[in-house]
Amino acid sequence: MSRNVAGPEIEQLIQLLARLPGLGPRSARRAALHLIKKKDQLMTPLAAAMTRARDMIIVCETCASVDTTSPCAICSDPRRDPSVICVVEEVGDLWALERAAVIKGRYHVLGGTLSPLDGVGPEELNIDKLVERAKSDEVTEIILALNATVEGQSTAHYLMDRLEECDATISQLAHGVPVGGELDYLDEGTLAAAIKARKIL
Amino acid sequence: MSRNVAGPEIEQLIQLLARLPGLGPRSARRAALHLIKKKDQLMTPLAAAMTRARDMIIVCETCASVDTTSPCAICSDPRRDPSVICVVEEVGDLWALERAAVIKGRYHVLGGTLSPLDGVGPEELNIDKLVERAKSDEVTEIILALNATVEGQSTAHYLMDRLEECDATISQLAHGVPVGGELDYLDEGTLAAAIKARKIL
Repeated sequence: MSRNVAGPEIEQLIQLLARLPGLGPRSARRAALHLIKKKDQLMTPLAAAMTRARDMIIVCETCASVDTTSPCAICSDPRRDPSVICVVEEVGDLWALERAAVIKGRYHVLGGTLSPLDGVGPEELNIDKLVERAKSDEVTEIILALNATVEGQSTAHYLMDRLEECDATISQLAHGVPVGGELDYLDEGTLAAAIKARKIL
Repeated sequence: MSRNVAGPEIEQLIQLLARLPGLGPRSARRAALHLIKKKDQLMTPLAAAMTRARDMIIVCETCASVDTTSPCAICSDPRRDPSVICVVEEVGDLWALERAAVIKGRYHVLGGTLSPLDGVGPEELNIDKLVERAKSDEVTEIILALNATVEGQSTAHYLMDRLEECDATISQLAHGVPVGGELDYLDEGTLAAAIKARKIL
């Protein structure tokens, strides 16, 4: 900022807010003002929620998701099918699948994708633990639910190699036209995948 | 959210973050995950900054800006020209003018615009205090720096009536083509104002 206009306390609040994804310097200023205006209704409870989250949230030792218990609520839920492990890149992907309520089994969070140029090798990801879990006789299917990006797909290929010795079936998400999607707006790769995987009616 | 996927602590954090301007439910989830990932580097200092801001920030009794002192740093700065008062709608507008460093005088924050339909009359805004400040012999100019919206301009008209008895000159921001603006993208109102206020070279 060209000039400190608002005192060090507000400036610091703005600068920290600007580090949240989705907020730039301008929207961070708006957010800070909104917080100052709504001191009791928003700033106080948000600060408390952050402090509480910081103190209580831990990483699940089984699947590497975040929760207040370890194993997390999903890993320790007896109604979850222990024979299916759904592998995702990030906790946000796990949340998305949970909102869709499409996975009856449990999850495994890798913590990213392989990216040799950025120094992210297999050791940086939560892969050894996945191989260990996959070796259990209980596990019959591993669903690779990685992003349909170059990084996601090359990580999926690496995982297939690593999981070769397991008895479990390895599957991955179907590619195709998104539900509600219009062909005219889809890229060629998606269209090609949708044609290739077309279903006979 | 269709299903509580992340435990009450994280859900509450997401819901509070979603109340910030600029963050919707989706970006609030991303922000929450980012905070959880950056516990020590971001979540802890942000919670502390909010708590500190909440405890320290007060409204200036002179101009109604926010600061940790009252009168605020600007109102109590002896280098500021006491003869000019720049009237703005919100604290964010004051910050924008301060970043541009174009006001040598002091400010007066109205706290909004007149909006009879929303029940915002002159009593709801910080207008009486402005009239009182304007009556001081020290004050020679009042700059109405309100937004160029219908609400901002009708509030400016109302203020001109209320300030009629003061000896100070009353001015308002020029309308015209924004610096760097392309005519093709400007609305008719701006173009008309720019032509009307054209300068002879």
